[in-house]
Amino acid sequence: MPKRVTPPEITLGERPSNVTLTRWLHQQLRQSILDGRLKSGTRLPASRDFANHYKLSRGTVVAVFEELQAEGYLSSTVGAGTWVNELPENPQRARKSSPPVRILPPPLTGLTFPHPARPFRCHEPAVTDFPMDIWARLASRRLRAASAAMLAERDPRGHLPLREALADYLGVSRGVNCAADQIVIVSGVQQALDLLARVLLKPGDRVWMEDPGYFGAVIAFRNARANIIPVPVDERGISVTIGRQRACRAKGAYITPAHQFPLGVLMPLERRLEILAWARETGAFLIEDDYDSEYRFEGRPAPVLQSLDKNESVLLIGSFNKLLFPALRLGYIVVPSRLVDTVLAFRFGIDQNSVGLEQAVLSDFITEGHMGRHIRRMRELYAGRLTALKEESRRYLGGLIEIPHIPAGLSTVGFLRNGMSSREAEIAAAGRGIETMALDRFTLERKDVQGLLLGFAAFDESRIRRGIASLAMALEQRRAGAPAA
Amino acid sequence: MPKRVTPPEITLGERPSNVTLTRWLHQQLRQSILDGRLKSGTRLPASRDFANHYKLSRGTVVAVFEELQAEGYLSSTVGAGTWVNELPENPQRARKSSPPVRILPPPLTGLTFPHPARPFRCHEPAVTDFPMDIWARLASRRLRAASAAMLAERDPRGHLPLREALADYLGVSRGVNCAADQIVIVSGVQQALDLLARVLLKPGDRVWMEDPGYFGAVIAFRNARANIIPVPVDERGISVTIGRQRACRAKGAYITPAHQFPLGVLMPLERRLEILAWARETGAFLIEDDYDSEYRFEGRPAPVLQSLDKNESVLLIGSFNKLLFPALRLGYIVVPSRLVDTVLAFRFGIDQNSVGLEQAVLSDFITEGHMGRHIRRMRELYAGRLTALKEESRRYLGGLIEIPHIPAGLSTVGFLRNGMSSREAEIAAAGRGIETMALDRFTLERKDVQGLLLGFAAFDESRIRRGIASLAMALEQRRAGAPAA
Repeated sequence: MPKRVTPPEITLGERPSNVTLTRWLHQQLRQSILDGRLKSGTRLPASRDFANHYKLSRGTVVAVFEELQAEGYLSSTVGAGTWVNELPENPQRARKSSPPVRILPPPLTGLTFPHPARPFRCHEPAVTDFPMDIWARLASRRLRAASAAMLAERDPRGHLPLREALADYLGVSRGVNCAADQIVIVSGVQQALDLLARVLLKPGDRVWMEDPGYFGAVIAFRNARANIIPVPVDERGISVTIGRQRACRAKGAYITPAHQFPLGVLMPLERRLEILAWARETGAFLIEDDYDSEYRFEGRPAPVLQSLDKNESVLLIGSFNKLLFPALRLGYIVVPSRLVDTVLAFRFGIDQNSVGLEQAVLSDFITEGHMGRHIRRMRELYAGRLTALKEESRRYLGGLIEIPHIPAGLSTVGFLRNGMSSREAEIAAAGRGIETMALDRFTLERKDVQGLLLGFAAFDESRIRRGIASLAMALEQRRAGAPAA
Repeated sequence: MPKRVTPPEITLGERPSNVTLTRWLHQQLRQSILDGRLKSGTRLPASRDFANHYKLSRGTVVAVFEELQAEGYLSSTVGAGTWVNELPENPQRARKSSPPVRILPPPLTGLTFPHPARPFRCHEPAVTDFPMDIWARLASRRLRAASAAMLAERDPRGHLPLREALADYLGVSRGVNCAADQIVIVSGVQQALDLLARVLLKPGDRVWMEDPGYFGAVIAFRNARANIIPVPVDERGISVTIGRQRACRAKGAYITPAHQFPLGVLMPLERRLEILAWARETGAFLIEDDYDSEYRFEGRPAPVLQSLDKNESVLLIGSFNKLLFPALRLGYIVVPSRLVDTVLAFRFGIDQNSVGLEQAVLSDFITEGHMGRHIRRMRELYAGRLTALKEESRRYLGGLIEIPHIPAGLSTVGFLRNGMSSREAEIAAAGRGIETMALDRFTLERKDVQGLLLGFAAFDESRIRRGIASLAMALEQRRAGAPAA
C-alpha cells in the first residue's frame, strides 16, 4: 500500500463560474508547478486524500493527475505515489513579452504594422465589418459534423467542394474559364507567388516585373534566384514594347491587369492582347495577380486576362485574405491543365496542403450566397470611404497631393505635389502618426514615382477626416520650408 | 417607370426545413442560371412582382437579387430592370469529378493514399478517436468571441498565446529550453523543412542526411539545390564518424534522435553528445525532427537533443498534424535566438503567416489540459495496437517478417525474412489490399534495407488481424515459389 502523505500547501485560486472543475484544477496545479510553488520532487497526496482535502470528487482529481502526467508535469508509479517532475528550466520565468516584429524583408524594411491599424494602412480590409456571426455559425455546423474524412484530408489540391464552388464563382464573377481540378488552394498570394516562382523559374532565368510593382512578387522571384527584368508601367499597365526590347526571351512575367499595383491603372483590351501575343510567340508564362478585382466601384469589373488566353499561358492567382479577413490564410492558383501535375508535385514538397476546416467553411460561405452579400456590402462601404478620402483631400491637401480617378481597390495612390520625395513624405507622415507606403518602395530601376499609397478601406469617415488633417500638416512642412524629417 | 415583365417560368424546388428562405432562393436561382434553365439575357420580373408570384417577401427577393448581382450572375440598371448575365462558359458542365492525385514527388512515386486508409498506412493517426466535440466547443467559443485583432492577425511568428503555451508544453514534456519568441508557428514539418533548407543552405552546400531517412527532408534539400551527403544509420542513429569522413565541413545535418525515421532507433546520450560536438567544432546546424516523440509506450520519452545544446546549433521542429489531426496544418520550429530574425524575414516571403483561428483553438486545447488527456488516451490505444500487431505477426508472419522491439511511434519497421526485396514485398502487399511502404523508398546510397514500414495507429485490432492475414498471404508467395508481383 502506498505511503500516505499529507496534502501539500497548495493554494487553489477561486474558480470562475464559466470554468469546469477539471479545467480549473488542471490550470491551478500546472501554474503552481510552473511558478515553482510546487517544487520538483514534491509528492502529492493520494487522489482520494487530495479529493477529500479540497472537497472535489475523486474522479476529477484522478483525471487531472493523469493529464498532468501525460503532459510531463507529474510522474507516478505504483507504490511510490505521484510526484512533481523536475522541469528542465522554467521557460515561464525566462519569457519576456514579444518585442515588435522586426522581420520584414526589403523592400518593406523599416515598416511596422502594429495593431490596430492607423490611417492609411494599405490593404487592411474592414475586418470589423466582416459577418463573423455567419462565419461562426457555418464553422460550428461544420465542426459538429466533422467526419474522419475531413479531419484526415490531405489533398494537395484542396477541398473538392471548395474548388468546385470557386470554379463557379470565378467563372461567373471574373470570367475565368477553368475546371475545379485546375484550382490549387494555397494560403494566399504570397504562397502562390513563392510556389510558382520555384516551379516556373530556374536560377538565372529572366522574368519581367512591373516597375513600379508588387513587392511580394519581387521577394518570391529573388528567393528563386531569378533575374528580374524591370519593365516600366505606363497608363495602360506594363509596357510590352519595352519588355520585348529588354528581354524578349524572358521565361515569363508578373502582371496585375485588373488594378495595377501600386498605380491602380486598368490594362485595356489592346494591351492584354499584346502581352498574350508575346506569351504565345515565346512560350512565356504570365502570372496574373487578380488583386482587389472585386472592388471596382463603377461599372462591372473587367474579366480576367486568363479568359482571353487560348494558349495555356496564364496562371491566375488570388486571395480571400483581404476579401474576408487576413487570419483566414486561403487563396488559389488557377493552373493551365498542362502544368497541374508539376505544380502539385512541387506543392506537396512545400507544405503538403492547406488548412482543412476553413476550406469547408469558405465553400459554404460562397455557395450559400454570403460571399456575394459581403462583397456587395463592402463595395458600397469602400466606395463611400474612397469618396470621403477624395473629398477631404481636395479640401485639405490641395497643392500637396493629387489623387487620380481610380474607382477600385482598398487603397489609392496619391501623387505628391509639394516637392517631397516619396520617402520624405512617408517619414513626415509617420511623424504625425499616419501610416503610408512611399511609392519608391515599389520601384526597381525607375526613379522615384513621387507619391504615397493610401489605404482607406478599414477607416470610417471620421478617421479618414482626422487622418487627412494630420497628413496635411505633415506635407505642409516642406512647403513651409521646414526640414522633411 | 421600368417596363413590367411577366415572371419567367422558373421552377423553384422544395425548400428543406433547415434552410432559410434567402439561402434557398439564392441557391435555386444560381443553379437555374448555371444549368442554363435561366438563359443569359433573360429579364427577371421586378422584385415586387417576383415576390407576389412566388409568395415571398419583397425584402427577401431584393436581398437575393443583390447577392446574385454582386456575384456577377445578374445585372440591373434603373429603367431596364434586372437580367441574367452572359456567363463566359459553363464550368459546371465542363467539370468532371476529381481524378486520384497523381502528384507525389519521388521517392513517393507510385503510391496513392485513398480515403479511408487501409492497414498498414504509415503515419495515419486514429482520427476517429480525436475528441472533435471538445475541439468544436473550443472553436465555437473562439469564433463567437473573435475580435478584430484576431481576424487581422498577421504575426509571422504566430499567435503569441499559442507560442507561450507551446514554450511551456515543450519545456515540460520534451525538455526544450526556449522562450516563446524563439518559436515560429508553421503549417507542419514539411513547411519547417522547406523553410529551413532555404534559409540555411545555398545551392551546392553539403548537408548530412540519415540513410535511410525521411523523404520529406530529402525533398526539401533537393528543392534548395543542396548537395545531400548520405550518412548511414546504425543501431544508435546517424553515424557521426562516417559523416565526418564523408563531409566534415558540411553545413548541417537532419536528424531524428527520438525515433529514427524509418528504423525507429533511439539515439543514446553518447551519440547525441558526439553530434553536438561536431556541430560545435564546425559551426554546423542540426535540424532535430522530434517526430512521434509523444508516443513512447515504455518509460518516459528522452528529452530532446536541443536541451543539451549549449551552442545554438539545434533547430527543433515538430508538428500537431499527426498528434491531433492531419487537416489541422500546424507545426513549429524552435529557432536559436541568433537566427530568429533571419528565419522570420524569410518566412514572411514564403506565406506571411499561419492560419489564425486554429492557433487560438490549439492554445486553448493545450492550456486547458485536453492535449495531455488526448496524448495519454492515444498512448494507451496505440500501445495496445502495437501489441496486437506484434502478437498477430508472431503468430502468422513467423519466418516472413520480423518486428524489432521499438515501443514507440505510429508505425514500425518489419524486416523481411522471406527473401523478397522491400519493393517486391510492397507490391505483393498492395495486391492483397495492404498499404505499406518499402524501406528502399527511404534509402539514398545504401542498398535495400529489406523491410516494410507498417502503420498501426489508425486500425483497431480486428483490422490489424485481418491485415496481417492478408499480408501473410502476400509474403507467402515467394516462399511458395510464386512470382513476387
